[in-house]
Amino acid sequence: MEPFEVPDVVVLRLPLYVRALTQLVAEETEVVSSQQLGRRLQMTPAQIRKDLSYFGRFGKQGRGYSVSFLLKELRRILGLDRQWRACVVGVGRLGRAIINYPGFAPEAFKIVAAFDSNPQQIGNTVGDLQVQGMFALSQTVQERDISIGILAVPAAQAQSVVDQLVESRVRGILNYAPVAPQAPKGTVMMNIDPVLSLQSMTYYLKNLA
Amino acid sequence: MEPFEVPDVVVLRLPLYVRALTQLVAEETEVVSSQQLGRRLQMTPAQIRKDLSYFGRFGKQGRGYSVSFLLKELRRILGLDRQWRACVVGVGRLGRAIINYPGFAPEAFKIVAAFDSNPQQIGNTVGDLQVQGMFALSQTVQERDISIGILAVPAAQAQSVVDQLVESRVRGILNYAPVAPQAPKGTVMMNIDPVLSLQSMTYYLKNLA
Repeated sequence: MEPFEVPDVVVLRLPLYVRALTQLVAEETEVVSSQQLGRRLQMTPAQIRKDLSYFGRFGKQGRGYSVSFLLKELRRILGLDRQWRACVVGVGRLGRAIINYPGFAPEAFKIVAAFDSNPQQIGNTVGDLQVQGMFALSQTVQERDISIGILAVPAAQAQSVVDQLVESRVRGILNYAPVAPQAPKGTVMMNIDPVLSLQSMTYYLKNLA
Repeated sequence: MEPFEVPDVVVLRLPLYVRALTQLVAEETEVVSSQQLGRRLQMTPAQIRKDLSYFGRFGKQGRGYSVSFLLKELRRILGLDRQWRACVVGVGRLGRAIINYPGFAPEAFKIVAAFDSNPQQIGNTVGDLQVQGMFALSQTVQERDISIGILAVPAAQAQSVVDQLVESRVRGILNYAPVAPQAPKGTVMMNIDPVLSLQSMTYYLKNLA
């Protein structure tokens, strides 16, 4: 059971569950109650049960969840039981760092292409990728079956690159530029939001002072 | 009442409350129940009451919360009732975009300095800031009362810049490099984590396909 209308904020919480359950598997915990999972994530058991209830029944009343089963199911629900191919657009400092980040591969993501609009970057090697010009975007996306574009371009170029990605049928866009470009329906855009992080940080800073 | 030991995940959720309450103020809503706030954030009323209970009593039983009072209190708790001065280290594409981002100022953050280790960047103007060399970090941090450093440097330089920021007594660091540098106790490091965003994105991509 996977009804289409799961609230966005619930979907945004699922990766936190996946992370906690992955830790539990590493600790060789086989069964976890919503109380225990709640303590780890500082969420009430009822909130956890409600979130999970959107996707079916995972536990038996009073018995807790099978850690490995729940993890497997959540990974399947999130689409993490397959590999997703991504490209990076913009090979400045950030783009290079993203390409060389070791954290994507174990999590079902593989960066298979890099693009830049600057002719001087074309042909350069970043990680084990050769930087391509934007003119090659559409063909490479098709040939290499790329679903996700990671935007690491200047803010002023973000909208134009989004348009090009959408035209090339890239449906998922992770935007690092601190602007919010528009994308048509049927595209999934995630914006990295620095303000939320800063607003939590100041809580601690205030208490340090 | 502000006990020191509020769980991190609760602190990370507070900015979401601030955002929702800010919207409610804009809509001229004066009172909100935990049910209504819960619908907006897709959280159970009990979760919301529990999160808020760490900080005292904000509502009267059965009466709901005063939107403006709760917003003011949460902003105070998060330390958003004052201005925080930040510097950006690294003025490549990302650093420039951050400096020019209009979203920080209304949220109590002001970027007052920019640094780069590349001598060719020193003296350049970004936004209304003149880029300084790293050798000027310590003095500028002190003179301009900077508490937050935003890291937009290549991954390989992240640790060294964190060390320099810590030595200059910058206590809050927002790290955009997809690595996790170490910082001593008494420093607050927030890492932008692209994997969590991608793991939610694939839920939607899978359902689009």
